[in-house]
Amino acid sequence: MPSDPSSGGPTAGAAAPERPAVDDAFLSALLDTPQDHEERPRGFVAVGDGSDADFRYLTGIAGVDRPSAFVRLVNERVVCPPVGAADIAARQFDGRVATARSGEPPGQRAAAVLKEASDRRPDGADVVLTPATIPHDAALYLERAGYELRSTAAVREARATKTGGEISAIGAVQDAAVAAVRRGASVLAAASAADDELRWEGGALTAERLRRAVDAELVRQGVQPGGRTVVTAGPSAQPEVPGGGRSDADAAVRVAEPVRIDVAPHGPHGYHGALSRTFVVDSDGGWERRAYVAVESALDAALGEIAPGVTISEVRREADAEVTAFGFDPGGEGTGPGDAVHGVGLTPRERPRSGGETVEPGSVVAVTPRVSDPDYGSVALGGLVAVREDGIDRLGEATWSFSPRPAE
Amino acid sequence: MPSDPSSGGPTAGAAAPERPAVDDAFLSALLDTPQDHEERPRGFVAVGDGSDADFRYLTGIAGVDRPSAFVRLVNERVVCPPVGAADIAARQFDGRVATARSGEPPGQRAAAVLKEASDRRPDGADVVLTPATIPHDAALYLERAGYELRSTAAVREARATKTGGEISAIGAVQDAAVAAVRRGASVLAAASAADDELRWEGGALTAERLRRAVDAELVRQGVQPGGRTVVTAGPSAQPEVPGGGRSDADAAVRVAEPVRIDVAPHGPHGYHGALSRTFVVDSDGGWERRAYVAVESALDAALGEIAPGVTISEVRREADAEVTAFGFDPGGEGTGPGDAVHGVGLTPRERPRSGGETVEPGSVVAVTPRVSDPDYGSVALGGLVAVREDGIDRLGEATWSFSPRPAE
Repeated sequence: MPSDPSSGGPTAGAAAPERPAVDDAFLSALLDTPQDHEERPRGFVAVGDGSDADFRYLTGIAGVDRPSAFVRLVNERVVCPPVGAADIAARQFDGRVATARSGEPPGQRAAAVLKEASDRRPDGADVVLTPATIPHDAALYLERAGYELRSTAAVREARATKTGGEISAIGAVQDAAVAAVRRGASVLAAASAADDELRWEGGALTAERLRRAVDAELVRQGVQPGGRTVVTAGPSAQPEVPGGGRSDADAAVRVAEPVRIDVAPHGPHGYHGALSRTFVVDSDGGWERRAYVAVESALDAALGEIAPGVTISEVRREADAEVTAFGFDPGGEGTGPGDAVHGVGLTPRERPRSGGETVEPGSVVAVTPRVSDPDYGSVALGGLVAVREDGIDRLGEATWSFSPRPAE
Repeated sequence: MPSDPSSGGPTAGAAAPERPAVDDAFLSALLDTPQDHEERPRGFVAVGDGSDADFRYLTGIAGVDRPSAFVRLVNERVVCPPVGAADIAARQFDGRVATARSGEPPGQRAAAVLKEASDRRPDGADVVLTPATIPHDAALYLERAGYELRSTAAVREARATKTGGEISAIGAVQDAAVAAVRRGASVLAAASAADDELRWEGGALTAERLRRAVDAELVRQGVQPGGRTVVTAGPSAQPEVPGGGRSDADAAVRVAEPVRIDVAPHGPHGYHGALSRTFVVDSDGGWERRAYVAVESALDAALGEIAPGVTISEVRREADAEVTAFGFDPGGEGTGPGDAVHGVGLTPRERPRSGGETVEPGSVVAVTPRVSDPDYGSVALGGLVAVREDGIDRLGEATWSFSPRPAE
């Protein structure tokens, strides 16, 4: 019986719109640190909108789609929203709201807020800290107001270490991801085969239909698929390439070919999950069975490697060595959606991510070893771990078999 | 009987991953236009990732989540993706791919591409055009390479005028929006009342359950809800504020109170729809009936006002005048999610949007008059129109009654 996606269902923690607490004490520390000439910076300025993860992290503001400035003084948090967004900002922001005048660019407003604060703290230098990627026009407004800009990666770095509240938020999204991939497995289990092609509920079971079933379950769980659910089946599958495998998304899934489901949904608070599973209906125990054992073993090896101070490269190498030991090609190191090991948080892929970046207590990391072969298809297995001083916690974990089983 | 969200369903045009054709000849024209001293700019540079609408518009690249540079020379289109994203870029981009070296920032790579092109076009000045919001670090790399930057709003302006392909893409998403809001109406129609509270499929029908049912239908139609579906019911509804009305999202919807459904989904190609409807179960013909007539009349008036050359303010004023004529307060001009009149495209709200911006042939505009009162609730009615030289086309249009009716 088809389950209805909107009937009841758990009101998962993932659905809670509350924003997990983050701590921006790192900015106070930064502003109390003397720069050149023993002078402390006047403040920190970032400019973004509700879709910008750094801005959302700093302000908690979502849903304002014109750029605002965030100004952090040593003892005060100020946000400068555009006219008309003052109410929303006041509701969502913990600090002072200094609304821009009509048409006033956020960089100009930020400069005014800094000037106003100068009287209260005349000992500071005219240095202002910003992310390197602050919009150029905002940087020019600050420079014209007499400030010298220094770039800082402090926000990006702070985001890499999650608080307990952030880890809980990610864990709740991951629970929704588990339910959705289980739904995919139960659709596969319920499918019947005709001439080696799977049929389900009166029609061919295509990768596209399976993707929609998985997305519907994500929605039922109160999280957003975000357009990142990828279902690929058969030899031509290229899940690492956006749109890869879509060319045959409307062809029926076949018996004995690997069906890979990758999801990376996010909750109302903006935090993401990441889960990959591969199923085979009536496997004949060939390539896909060996590939599955290889990625399962690679996942175990990679998870065993994760500990504070270990680099992303080291974790990847551990997974790759295992895949190679089973006689498969692990492929090159990806830096796109193909990243096998990367941090997860307010964005689906974030620090630690580059090879030399290290896993630390508070890191939440996706580990997804996979094996692809144009003659057979793609097999992947992966999920999320939260790193502690003395170990790791697997988030939303579930042990599943290779063959899809009906939902309990 | 609950309908299953993943079973078959129309393979809507909205699901087509193909990107509608856009024309960047405006950039050629811009590069052939002499700036100061009768010299033409060397090129145009933008920096963004797959989540940046300007960058997606210029390159067609989605799914690369690290910044790339786009360089437009007078006769050539070049994209500079980070290492590892070269394959994806080559697949999605119509032009030359000049992949960055490992760790090379996109601004630095763009400067190298410009330098390389100088030999071929030695008559150009050292002026380079960029959007005003290009990341500051990229601007500095270009300046250090000897280029003088001039900002241009050409891309944002070009995006405001849609091609036929873009309008079709938006129309297909709008069809999915219509189906989803209809699904919401059919859930309301199927609900039963107990002590004035609605019940549906074995539990209280809450705004949150209704939202998930609407989102599941969007997903079934192959589009993404994007976290922008808002269902509000009852007096405390504040749909114009993100999260507003969520405080009672888990309370049962009641008989005779307005239930407002707003959706703004997007298709795989990134283009958005926008639809708002309000339903009342067993209305007693009081405030909500009069409010509905007012917004219906305001919508007609606003649509009648839309024509090439008319400003956004003029359209808003027409709607507001009608709302006022019915004895309601139209509220202030919003610039956030509360905008009653705004363009729609690769972002849910875009040009024309500010009061003085005009509607032109090729504009796609959302018009959503609404009336809110803390004693009664919120009533809105709105959809999308595409503007022609000699008229307007309503996209995904459907005439519905105020009382929810079961799906046909």
